Amino acid sequence: MSTSKTQAPQLNDVLSPVLWLDGTVALLDQRKLPGREVWLTYNDAQGVATAIRDMVVRGAPAIGCTAAMGLAAGAQSMPEDAQAFIKQFDAACDILAASRPTAVNLFWAIDQQREVVAQMRNQPTASLKSALVDNALRIWREDIAACQAIGRFGAELLPKAPRVLTHCNAGALATGGYGTALGVIRGAVEAGKPTCVYADETRPYLQGARLTAWELMRDNIDVTLICDNMAAALLAKGEINCIVVGSDRIAGNGDVANKIGTYGLAVLAKHHNVPFYVAAPLSTIDRQVTRGEDIPIEERPAEEVTRIGGYEIAPRDVKVRYPAFDVTPANLVTAIITEVGVAQPPQKETIDKLFER
Amino acid sequence: MSTSKTQAPQLNDVLSPVLWLDGTVALLDQRKLPGREVWLTYNDAQGVATAIRDMVVRGAPAIGCTAAMGLAAGAQSMPEDAQAFIKQFDAACDILAASRPTAVNLFWAIDQQREVVAQMRNQPTASLKSALVDNALRIWREDIAACQAIGRFGAELLPKAPRVLTHCNAGALATGGYGTALGVIRGAVEAGKPTCVYADETRPYLQGARLTAWELMRDNIDVTLICDNMAAALLAKGEINCIVVGSDRIAGNGDVANKIGTYGLAVLAKHHNVPFYVAAPLSTIDRQVTRGEDIPIEERPAEEVTRIGGYEIAPRDVKVRYPAFDVTPANLVTAIITEVGVAQPPQKETIDKLFER
Repeated sequence: MSTSKTQAPQLNDVLSPVLWLDGTVALLDQRKLPGREVWLTYNDAQGVATAIRDMVVRGAPAIGCTAAMGLAAGAQSMPEDAQAFIKQFDAACDILAASRPTAVNLFWAIDQQREVVAQMRNQPTASLKSALVDNALRIWREDIAACQAIGRFGAELLPKAPRVLTHCNAGALATGGYGTALGVIRGAVEAGKPTCVYADETRPYLQGARLTAWELMRDNIDVTLICDNMAAALLAKGEINCIVVGSDRIAGNGDVANKIGTYGLAVLAKHHNVPFYVAAPLSTIDRQVTRGEDIPIEERPAEEVTRIGGYEIAPRDVKVRYPAFDVTPANLVTAIITEVGVAQPPQKETIDKLFER
Repeated sequence: MSTSKTQAPQLNDVLSPVLWLDGTVALLDQRKLPGREVWLTYNDAQGVATAIRDMVVRGAPAIGCTAAMGLAAGAQSMPEDAQAFIKQFDAACDILAASRPTAVNLFWAIDQQREVVAQMRNQPTASLKSALVDNALRIWREDIAACQAIGRFGAELLPKAPRVLTHCNAGALATGGYGTALGVIRGAVEAGKPTCVYADETRPYLQGARLTAWELMRDNIDVTLICDNMAAALLAKGEINCIVVGSDRIAGNGDVANKIGTYGLAVLAKHHNVPFYVAAPLSTIDRQVTRGEDIPIEERPAEEVTRIGGYEIAPRDVKVRYPAFDVTPANLVTAIITEVGVAQPPQKETIDKLFER
């Protein structure tokens, strides 16, 4: 059923959590890291949507790449009849769009694929199926290239000897490859800056402990794991001289939705007079949403807080709040680093200019 | 070997994590909570010191009570010969003093017992052994009474409808009973204020998830568990209107050492214009130490960060930082609530006055 001959990149080359393999979407199961590297494959939108919801893959840009590939894979077994095809394709888009609410790259990628179908509506379905694969691979390749560009812009902004705090995983594992926040760190390392990283473990899902530590150690980048509540003490001692995070959605005014805990770090950065950078591709900026408070914030199941690896850390039936994301107002953000340049300070005008380049 | 007929209080009455039972120290094994309620007994200083280091018991005032009882229990089997007794007693004091470095109540309680021995040096060893038991029980009873007084003073300070964030466990389980920060919460509830509590889970040791949630649910006090990194988002939404924490040691100038993460909360409280209260008995104030940066901060083993209930959450061999405590400067503290009154704002003069009452 494969319509593409694209080879999977060697993992020693570029680490990517989502690959196109013989007409299927292959996902590195991030729930199993760092203990085991398990790849799962999917060939329809429903399977991919479930994988996104269950966090086999996570990270806004990676979710976008995955959704685009999921539509491409699913399209291959849809009817040749144009009307029937479009009906099934639209349904697949809806299924994927319902998988998670906050990361806008998901909706962006779905729209990119819808656009292909809209533009090729009068061509043979076979061409359309092929074009969906090409477009998914373009999105994936461009995401990696965008991360590398973010890395170059970001590397210039960081101090001469960066001691970077990062939160969650905005790394290769959260993107097509290379990473956004970790892309900036990789960029600084490649630019020869002696860089050390503090990784917040990032409760409750522990993306920092499980994923960021794993991918930085894999690349021999100096990383030290801390609990989320230790950042303030290290800032007070001057052990951290900048903070770099990714984003799941940036509003038109520069407000930043990102993993829960990000906002608190931005307040701490301000208090300690340390720059707070957000690294994200343009596909993360949602100018349809004018300000952060209008970004939908996902609440996830209490069990992700009260159970860790099957171990119950709290009394049964305890009440839990678990907003998975928070919003950092633009005035606490030093700069937003994108693949086309830097919005500094982030506000409607500087962000609009990025889209004009 | 028992020299005391003191009955263990019924647990339905006052929850205490440390009891004097027939000449032994009985400790509720807090490592097993909330899953199981297991009591362990000790009859010498070495055993008690190990229990303190291994966190069978924790919380500055509870450690003080435990150390006092440990010396009382250990003394019972020491020689009748006065010189030999004092030599062994001093050794026991040294063993206990080496168990943990930050909480000052440990050293305070040991000094209280040393004082008994110094004052009764010329009396029969049997009387001395009995006096050590009496003094340990006095320390324990007075600690509970101090917490209840802290509760009454604190209750007045809290808002009419308190929505309190607390960190770690400064509760009955951290004291002789009733609690310091949770004593203030119990005081507010007893004063009829409709009170709800957000409990930080408090990584890495999860005292909030395991202990605070457990003891508040046991008393039917409304408690909601959150991850440490969620506090900022709830503060931004106005869902929290005050923060109350305990302390392991307060310097003469009002700087507060407490569980790692406390300092970050104090910064967040200031940013959101919410009062930040510290509840602690006078025995926690160490005027020998003039400022917070001179308080020794314990670094604990990396495994407490990287393993949760036997489950490895990070790559093996990852570097870890784990300062178990941090220091909040006095200027971020709204008030220190003690059993004799409130230091507001906390500074050398207001603190010195507490000791003159």
